[in-house]
Amino acid sequence: MPRIVDHEERRAEVAAAVWRIVSRDGLEAATVRRVAAETGMSTSVVSHYFAGKDDLLRLAFRIVVDRGRDRAIADSAGGGRTRALLVTALPVDTERRAEARVWFAFLGLAVSRPDLARDQRRAYTAWRRAVAAALRAEGLPEGRDAQTEAAGLIALVDGLTVQATFAPDRMTAARQLALLDERLAELGVG
Amino acid sequence: MPRIVDHEERRAEVAAAVWRIVSRDGLEAATVRRVAAETGMSTSVVSHYFAGKDDLLRLAFRIVVDRGRDRAIADSAGGGRTRALLVTALPVDTERRAEARVWFAFLGLAVSRPDLARDQRRAYTAWRRAVAAALRAEGLPEGRDAQTEAAGLIALVDGLTVQATFAPDRMTAARQLALLDERLAELGVG
Repeated sequence: MPRIVDHEERRAEVAAAVWRIVSRDGLEAATVRRVAAETGMSTSVVSHYFAGKDDLLRLAFRIVVDRGRDRAIADSAGGGRTRALLVTALPVDTERRAEARVWFAFLGLAVSRPDLARDQRRAYTAWRRAVAAALRAEGLPEGRDAQTEAAGLIALVDGLTVQATFAPDRMTAARQLALLDERLAELGVG
Repeated sequence: MPRIVDHEERRAEVAAAVWRIVSRDGLEAATVRRVAAETGMSTSVVSHYFAGKDDLLRLAFRIVVDRGRDRAIADSAGGGRTRALLVTALPVDTERRAEARVWFAFLGLAVSRPDLARDQRRAYTAWRRAVAAALRAEGLPEGRDAQTEAAGLIALVDGLTVQATFAPDRMTAARQLALLDERLAELGVG
């Protein structure tokens, strides 16, 4: 009986290897050859899962989005879902700083690539809706629109990420959280 | 008498050509060859001012920073300097959307290039100091730190830029300005 290859499992294995390389050695280090070495697969098998640099970046972006979402779900188990959905994207530790670098590299490419821009838009729409739903559940002040405030909160988180990535000594984890919490307090949530 | 070449003037001419190409046809279109055609200079002369793609991106980033600063100075002539320093970076029209695309492309490269990251940091430090000085001049509520609030406002502007770049139909100019003005009003300035 021929061995049946579980493509989903292999894809996950490739994705995990991509992530290990990216978080350890940076995005530049994640090549088909390195992923092959890391997984023990041949380069031709790895190439089946991503064809080149762009595919890899897309995969890495996907991983970042999934990790963020999983973390938010886990962290909001005890309440404070709005805050959890936002904090998850802040680069407050080494792992999340690696995620932020992937996110920037992806955005930089996506500005001239409509297909990647679509991925970006989809991820943001899902994020905004989740934050808006959480805001509604936690109760917004009269006259505030949940979708608009969600967009504003996500904007703040993204901008803090820019500063934390390029000036981590100045935009420390404590400062990121203080600025986010100040804003959440003004909206009466968090 | 040999003709003296005014390098500063030529550099400005090259920079202006780079910007015309970038804003018209996108960053990808700005090559040494295209800049040569646009300026009427030879490719070897143009190469004297930037050696390749990275230099060009650096030059384009510099132009974006300068344009933003000049606009802020002009717009704040009638008061409201804090707001002018922030609004200048929002992609509220076609020109500024082109600037935002350059900014993203630059950030995407800078995450793995310490020399470019330094340029980014320098530009942000100058921006934060200018906003903080404007906040102090306009008067912040008791207990608020101008540098921290300036960092928070710049973060909001950067994040709005992300959304306006990838979903301009949703994050319209009006919405960008409304979210910024809401925040400025909370700080009692603008």
